[in-house]
Amino acid sequence: MIIRSGIVISSLLLSLSAPAQDLSHGKWIDLTHAFNENSVYWPTADMFKQTEVFAGHTDGGYYYSAYNFSAAEHGGTHLDSPIHFAEGGHTADQLPVEQLVGPGFVIDVSKQSAENVDYLVTAADIEAFEKDHGALPKGAIVLLMTGRAELYNDREQYMGTAERGEAAVAKLHFPGLSKEGASLLVARGINAVGIDTPSIDYGQSSDFATHVELMTHNIPAFENVADMSALPATGSTIIALPMKIEGGSGGPLRIVAHIK
Amino acid sequence: MIIRSGIVISSLLLSLSAPAQDLSHGKWIDLTHAFNENSVYWPTADMFKQTEVFAGHTDGGYYYSAYNFSAAEHGGTHLDSPIHFAEGGHTADQLPVEQLVGPGFVIDVSKQSAENVDYLVTAADIEAFEKDHGALPKGAIVLLMTGRAELYNDREQYMGTAERGEAAVAKLHFPGLSKEGASLLVARGINAVGIDTPSIDYGQSSDFATHVELMTHNIPAFENVADMSALPATGSTIIALPMKIEGGSGGPLRIVAHIK
Ligand SMILES: [Zn+2]
Ligand SMILES: [Zn+2]
Repeated sequence: MIIRSGIVISSLLLSLSAPAQDLSHGKWIDLTHAFNENSVYWPTADMFKQTEVFAGHTDGGYYYSAYNFSAAEHGGTHLDSPIHFAEGGHTADQLPVEQLVGPGFVIDVSKQSAENVDYLVTAADIEAFEKDHGALPKGAIVLLMTGRAELYNDREQYMGTAERGEAAVAKLHFPGLSKEGASLLVARGINAVGIDTPSIDYGQSSDFATHVELMTHNIPAFENVADMSALPATGSTIIALPMKIEGGSGGPLRIVAHIK
Repeated sequence: MIIRSGIVISSLLLSLSAPAQDLSHGKWIDLTHAFNENSVYWPTADMFKQTEVFAGHTDGGYYYSAYNFSAAEHGGTHLDSPIHFAEGGHTADQLPVEQLVGPGFVIDVSKQSAENVDYLVTAADIEAFEKDHGALPKGAIVLLMTGRAELYNDREQYMGTAERGEAAVAKLHFPGLSKEGASLLVARGINAVGIDTPSIDYGQSSDFATHVELMTHNIPAFENVADMSALPATGSTIIALPMKIEGGSGGPLRIVAHIK
């Protein structure tokens, strides 16, 4: 009986620390904006372009379509690999798959973000989440939900300006993660952090202190993540697979969540 | 006691019909070639190019790197979405995540492919696999292992010619899937099929009958898949997430396997 109780307790503990991520039931939520000519890019960055090679019926009797495309690495739903802001950090192809998969934790800061377009998610916001849901575990994938994904197709609303070029950068307004918040996530040993805005630093940042803090600790960021509102605060599994660009500072990301 | 036995039996049945795909243990295998200037593209297609925007220390005191890139959709480890060869078929952004995830079945045709560079995987090869491992279930992700992924960095070896342009197409030699094999996979209701060569049709194909057969049934193909030899014949979970190109006929694919 003592042995049996021991087994029960240790398997309970195991299921608390490493929840089974069973993909054979439940459903998938795609957290990725499609790439098209309206995809959100930094005002100074090359945008996504698609050009037709062929689309139609061929002389061979079969239908065929194919396209070329080009873009900056940083735009649309995308990865910031640590080397984007940290010399010697992992490039897009070097990030291990283990770091790109993990239990999802959705921190809802949509109220604060609705009141203040320049909102910085604080360490206190993260600690308040932990009071409700337990401490963020090592390996967590933390998603910051500002609720602004729904503005994605209107660049002026989504990022403060639809203008392009160097002069537009000062007009960027959207929420981000504070440096202190980033330090707390670093201390927790999370795998990665995502946000539903164009950048993990807020639009008005000029020193990119949050990028530097995360990436010097080899933690990648996922930016322009799509609507997270169908996700529970805890209990999802996030799978975020970037295009494997050798030496890439980031690139297109397909990020999906599995929920029970 | 009867109730308890019932529970045991039904959970056994459950685990047979829908194997738990538990990601919290086990390990990941990346089945993706990195994109670089040597990535394999069709002789007539634009190759992958990466250009530096900036890489180094900034006036702001932080390190920064970023690149632009361009390519044809079909090259490197990539998706063929049904619309590539079927009018009205799903585009890259329309493929549901459910179709891109599933139990992996690795059919080893490396012996046949070593003897014949123009080998076509037959329906009999698939039936022989099923005799050993059971019928391919609905939703399977079938990976054809020709063993040629190790030649990927030598285009002449890998695809029969390193030449570029229209005249090189006739010189392509690599194994593929026969149309009859494709029909059998369609009948099984698989989710997708992958191969470690540049195309699901063999190099000498001119009618692309295998593409047409799969894609008119809305089944995508994964091409230039990397080395599969670390995978078991059955028991893996495949997750294959393409870049979400709106209207895309395909595109860069990050394909990974989870094994226990
Ligand atoms: Zn970025
Ligand atoms: Zn292709």
